[in-house]
Amino acid sequence: MIRTLLLAGSAMFGGALQPAAAEGHRGWTLDDQLTVPDVRTLAIAADGDSAVYVVRVADRESDKTVAILRHVDLASGATRELLRAAWIEDLQQIPGTADWSARIDKGNGVQLYRIAADGAVTPIVVHPATAVYGDTERATYLGYGHAPLPTGVRSYSWSPDGRWLWYVVLDAEPYRQTMRYDADVASERAQRRSSGRATASIFLRDSDGQDRLLAKRPHSDISTFFGRSFVSWENEEVHYDVMEVDADGLQRSVAMAASLATGVSRVVEDKAKRGYWRLTGPHGGRLSSEGFGMTRDLVEKLPDGHTRNYGRFPFAVGDGRAVGGFRSVDGQRAIAGYRTVENPRFGLTVIDRKKARVIGGEASLNNCDFTATLDRGVCIAQSQNMPPAVVSIDVASGATKRIVSVAPDHETIAPLRTEPKIWVNRNGTKATGFIVWPRDYAKDKRYPAIVITHGTDADERFANQENQWEFPAQLFAERGYVVLLMNVPFSTQSADFKAIYDTWVNETKDRPPREVQDRIWLNDTESFEDAVSELISAGVVDPKRVGIAGYSRGSQSVNVTMTQSQMFRAASSGDGGYLEPAFYQSLAGSYDTVYGGPPTDPAALPNYLRMTPSLRGNKACGAMLLQMANPYPASIDLYTALRAAQVPAQISLYPGEDAASDETHIFHIPSNRLKAMQENIAWFDYWLLGKRDPASPFAGRYAEWDRMSKAAPRQCDGSKSAAHD
Amino acid sequence: MIRTLLLAGSAMFGGALQPAAAEGHRGWTLDDQLTVPDVRTLAIAADGDSAVYVVRVADRESDKTVAILRHVDLASGATRELLRAAWIEDLQQIPGTADWSARIDKGNGVQLYRIAADGAVTPIVVHPATAVYGDTERATYLGYGHAPLPTGVRSYSWSPDGRWLWYVVLDAEPYRQTMRYDADVASERAQRRSSGRATASIFLRDSDGQDRLLAKRPHSDISTFFGRSFVSWENEEVHYDVMEVDADGLQRSVAMAASLATGVSRVVEDKAKRGYWRLTGPHGGRLSSEGFGMTRDLVEKLPDGHTRNYGRFPFAVGDGRAVGGFRSVDGQRAIAGYRTVENPRFGLTVIDRKKARVIGGEASLNNCDFTATLDRGVCIAQSQNMPPAVVSIDVASGATKRIVSVAPDHETIAPLRTEPKIWVNRNGTKATGFIVWPRDYAKDKRYPAIVITHGTDADERFANQENQWEFPAQLFAERGYVVLLMNVPFSTQSADFKAIYDTWVNETKDRPPREVQDRIWLNDTESFEDAVSELISAGVVDPKRVGIAGYSRGSQSVNVTMTQSQMFRAASSGDGGYLEPAFYQSLAGSYDTVYGGPPTDPAALPNYLRMTPSLRGNKACGAMLLQMANPYPASIDLYTALRAAQVPAQISLYPGEDAASDETHIFHIPSNRLKAMQENIAWFDYWLLGKRDPASPFAGRYAEWDRMSKAAPRQCDGSKSAAHD
Repeated sequence: MIRTLLLAGSAMFGGALQPAAAEGHRGWTLDDQLTVPDVRTLAIAADGDSAVYVVRVADRESDKTVAILRHVDLASGATRELLRAAWIEDLQQIPGTADWSARIDKGNGVQLYRIAADGAVTPIVVHPATAVYGDTERATYLGYGHAPLPTGVRSYSWSPDGRWLWYVVLDAEPYRQTMRYDADVASERAQRRSSGRATASIFLRDSDGQDRLLAKRPHSDISTFFGRSFVSWENEEVHYDVMEVDADGLQRSVAMAASLATGVSRVVEDKAKRGYWRLTGPHGGRLSSEGFGMTRDLVEKLPDGHTRNYGRFPFAVGDGRAVGGFRSVDGQRAIAGYRTVENPRFGLTVIDRKKARVIGGEASLNNCDFTATLDRGVCIAQSQNMPPAVVSIDVASGATKRIVSVAPDHETIAPLRTEPKIWVNRNGTKATGFIVWPRDYAKDKRYPAIVITHGTDADERFANQENQWEFPAQLFAERGYVVLLMNVPFSTQSADFKAIYDTWVNETKDRPPREVQDRIWLNDTESFEDAVSELISAGVVDPKRVGIAGYSRGSQSVNVTMTQSQMFRAASSGDGGYLEPAFYQSLAGSYDTVYGGPPTDPAALPNYLRMTPSLRGNKACGAMLLQMANPYPASIDLYTALRAAQVPAQISLYPGEDAASDETHIFHIPSNRLKAMQENIAWFDYWLLGKRDPASPFAGRYAEWDRMSKAAPRQCDGSKSAAHD
Repeated sequence: MIRTLLLAGSAMFGGALQPAAAEGHRGWTLDDQLTVPDVRTLAIAADGDSAVYVVRVADRESDKTVAILRHVDLASGATRELLRAAWIEDLQQIPGTADWSARIDKGNGVQLYRIAADGAVTPIVVHPATAVYGDTERATYLGYGHAPLPTGVRSYSWSPDGRWLWYVVLDAEPYRQTMRYDADVASERAQRRSSGRATASIFLRDSDGQDRLLAKRPHSDISTFFGRSFVSWENEEVHYDVMEVDADGLQRSVAMAASLATGVSRVVEDKAKRGYWRLTGPHGGRLSSEGFGMTRDLVEKLPDGHTRNYGRFPFAVGDGRAVGGFRSVDGQRAIAGYRTVENPRFGLTVIDRKKARVIGGEASLNNCDFTATLDRGVCIAQSQNMPPAVVSIDVASGATKRIVSVAPDHETIAPLRTEPKIWVNRNGTKATGFIVWPRDYAKDKRYPAIVITHGTDADERFANQENQWEFPAQLFAERGYVVLLMNVPFSTQSADFKAIYDTWVNETKDRPPREVQDRIWLNDTESFEDAVSELISAGVVDPKRVGIAGYSRGSQSVNVTMTQSQMFRAASSGDGGYLEPAFYQSLAGSYDTVYGGPPTDPAALPNYLRMTPSLRGNKACGAMLLQMANPYPASIDLYTALRAAQVPAQISLYPGEDAASDETHIFHIPSNRLKAMQENIAWFDYWLLGKRDPASPFAGRYAEWDRMSKAAPRQCDGSKSAAHD
């Protein structure tokens, strides 16, 4: 059932790499918000003339998020849909062939397939798929924004000559009715669903198709279970990482190498240093960005201990959201993805032995792949206003060429005015982000405003779900809201600020709890307040109609802001509860850093009382909506505390596929996504604008909201949060 | 597959109602502890010549607790097993016939069957059984000490003429992928398993077998869902109770009556007063026991407001564990079950218009039934030392006659010396219970001792699981421990003491939190300490080898005692966590009474610090074992706190039938019961006696216990708990 589909030819959108949105002529719709395509993986053909990529996109009819595999001719832009499946991931060229491979769930779990340019999809490894990733009973591990995913093949790697295949298959362990003790019981405290266990088997397949088992790995080896094996092929060996866990639960990376000739594995390094990202530079050293502030040194740390500095750039390599990196076969060139510091966007830096240079312009380059020589490449380019498009890269000249849109429907939207901003708050800390202006903004009136925040995910990607979740920023702008897509102040702006973040992330006692609180969450609040104040002072925003929304890390910001500040009349807080006492036992180290101990420690309790949202219900004035994928006790406690203080509050739990499954932190069920966006619209329209929409699926809630509104003890007086002792 | 089985004839055990245990000649075994039969229901034949009863007993082979239906000829004692099934409950005579009915799960859920004296079991109502009671995913409601139980027929009642049948069937609602809000989300906080919902349908069947639907009842009607409908038949109507729940969640009992002629229901009383127990006396009033202390007034509160007093007795009627009650057809006589205050045991009082008299002697009479005229009856008799036996009752003379044993295997055990006791502690409060003496106790040496406590369940029942749970009291005595089966001080010993309990139970503020703490849990501790001290002073108990065990309410006593007292070197605390902060949000009203607010309230926190077990880890000296049917966060917190304080502690989670089910609060899986008993033996033997048994299934834990023992910061110095400020 391969459908051939000409999405949009280069004749229409080709040419210069710039937003095609000038073609647009209409406003955003709810359906546009839902169907923003998410490109997950991409691979160029060996000859560099074509590429394949996968988009994940909501399918309203089936109420599932589906994966679509497309083939694009890089000369013409002609695009064909090759396959539509529940899951497609890890596209790779198969060296020495014109084909690709990918992990695909065609209905019998995620397996490894060969994809020919003509669209033929044939099995390479099909393993009975019993281990499940997802938010469901008996899942082996949690998933990330997808339906429960039975998985046979977890990861794979081709040798550069294409003769060898290294791959991992999973086998779920059957439930055994056994007793558990101590740590195995305590781990249940934070668990909603009962978890399953699995083992992983690492195989090496030779060119005759013979498989050799390299290792059986236990459930605790998260390197193997999360596809973080850093596979490389050197000197007739395949290198890969595993994670060993000692009796005390301490993890260590172990670098292994297996002989291709014998299949025998050896330990290369017993305690290997492995971050999320690593790329070897032209001098055989490790590339990284160093320093603080608005520019960073691009350096290569050489094996001999010396450091080579390529210069100071307004970006950092190694960001988890940027393109990972590539190295030419001769080792003389590396290409690394970067993220800029100001107006965050993604690009590429080409690092040769002597110097580094930049590829990319105003748009972000995400998901790139290159030919083996690193001469020609293909990327997905996008920006706040530019829907993702396929672009080709000529590495020598650094030229990029727009080939074809990934999202032709979204090209027809007239772009909203989206202004990159850098805000400096009263404490002198900087926060980046964007103002999305209402369509047809007029200077002579004040507008309602909504801050949308999620840590540092506000950047030049197109309506990115990780950033705006189910807060439909573009629709809000269409409806007349000024939308502030705001990052929290970035940790690397100074060494001192970074030290605060390191204290939190590494759970040290380097800085006292109150300083950590003041300079992270309370400072976030001050950033939001000051950004809004600036627009109020400028006559743009109506101070009586300001809201705030955020999920996950953003929910921390929202929950703290709403219980510290009197500026925000309404909020939507998504699926988070960190900072609440209920999570203390599961996150004791982290909480000890933030609060100085458990809430039942009389010395620590005052530190909770000054910042824990649920303990400050009687300080809150605005209406809070808590949208949940999971009924977290912490979030329930916040809801309960707000209601006890008669502060308008609602907690809404979005359902999973079935009784045994939950919606995921990043929502994946289209009907939930639609409803959550509609609920946010109804919520802000009601509490900020006093508007009701009888056609809203949430119109049935108005009576309850009226009741809460009447009973509310306080109106927000617009004042900022007070300095804390 | 009805097996005929002569359990034991009256020729062997008949005659005087006294323990047959004098026949015994051997000691208790683990298997004896496991297979103590639990008689759940019993019914006499219409002619009074025979009876049927059901025992629930562990079946090691299938690893299930099974129900066995037996028929006993009351003249000869000849006993036949009629049926063995997963579940048999609610035996009733079918009026006007020689048959009985019962709710039975023969493999297709709990349904209503007719049982003929010849053992033929035929369906009366079989309803597709989809609603499940149990500790399992999607259960409609929790169960009580049984495997997940699909249920078609929930309750039933025959009209006195046998012409009409009132019954309730259940229909589970399918899972619907719907959003939930507010209270429906907050209820998840305390939930481990996702719950299902069901509706109940109440039917009336006439003598032609025609069914009429009287009412459809919602999930929230716990009267109907828990078979508490108090069905009665009067004036051509059937009366029954339902529970209505208003928008604010407030429940009220509503007494209904349906016309037999039309099936139309009417409300008899919109806010009916319904306790657990009610019995109408010979003057048409409501019977009860009144007053405090060691004797109580047996009174009948007449409809005209007057009270008739039948005199002062050393017992109370209306105890939930006693026989409920019977009323003669002419209304001139009532028979009520009672529980004695001192040396708690169960008997019957026959209440005629002028006076009340007593039936029963040293043994307890449990599970009785009578002929319609209340002339002849049958009961199960038992005591601490007497395995349950069938006895017949001649009501006129009050004579009881032992017919046949229910547990012939247990008759062969030589009884242990079991001494009823009433202890008076330093505060003058009384606690009842029993000392189970080691077999072959000798006066010239000191023995180790274990206190076993579970609220008020220490009484004259035979190795009752509700009391001793999986703490094998009799085996401990066989192994040389002095066992104290201790009740906590009974609430009715004085009006003042009762007021303390009422404050707790009714969640009022009548007494301040510290007084509630002092006089309930801290006073419990003082009772245990003083009881043990008495035996130490008498030279019986070795003060260095004293332990304590309790589950549920008993776990509260154990957890408080171990973090207040230095007398107990080892403890086993079963499946409880009340008093821990983790349960605050689920039990706010109760905790507010005990602690004066949440733990994050600075005014309440000192009240937690003085009594919350997990906040007093650094006061504990003894080794604590937490045996769990569920991974309660509260219990995990206690375990974690003890370990953090380096106090030896282990938490052991016993598994359910499958990944989606849990063991129940009262364990029902035989292999779990065996292991839990073995774990308790290994634990106390190790920590109190320093003994190891290489053959124990827990021998693998000794290394960890050694490690904990070495690291322990304190040895118990034998001192008592200090008075609190």
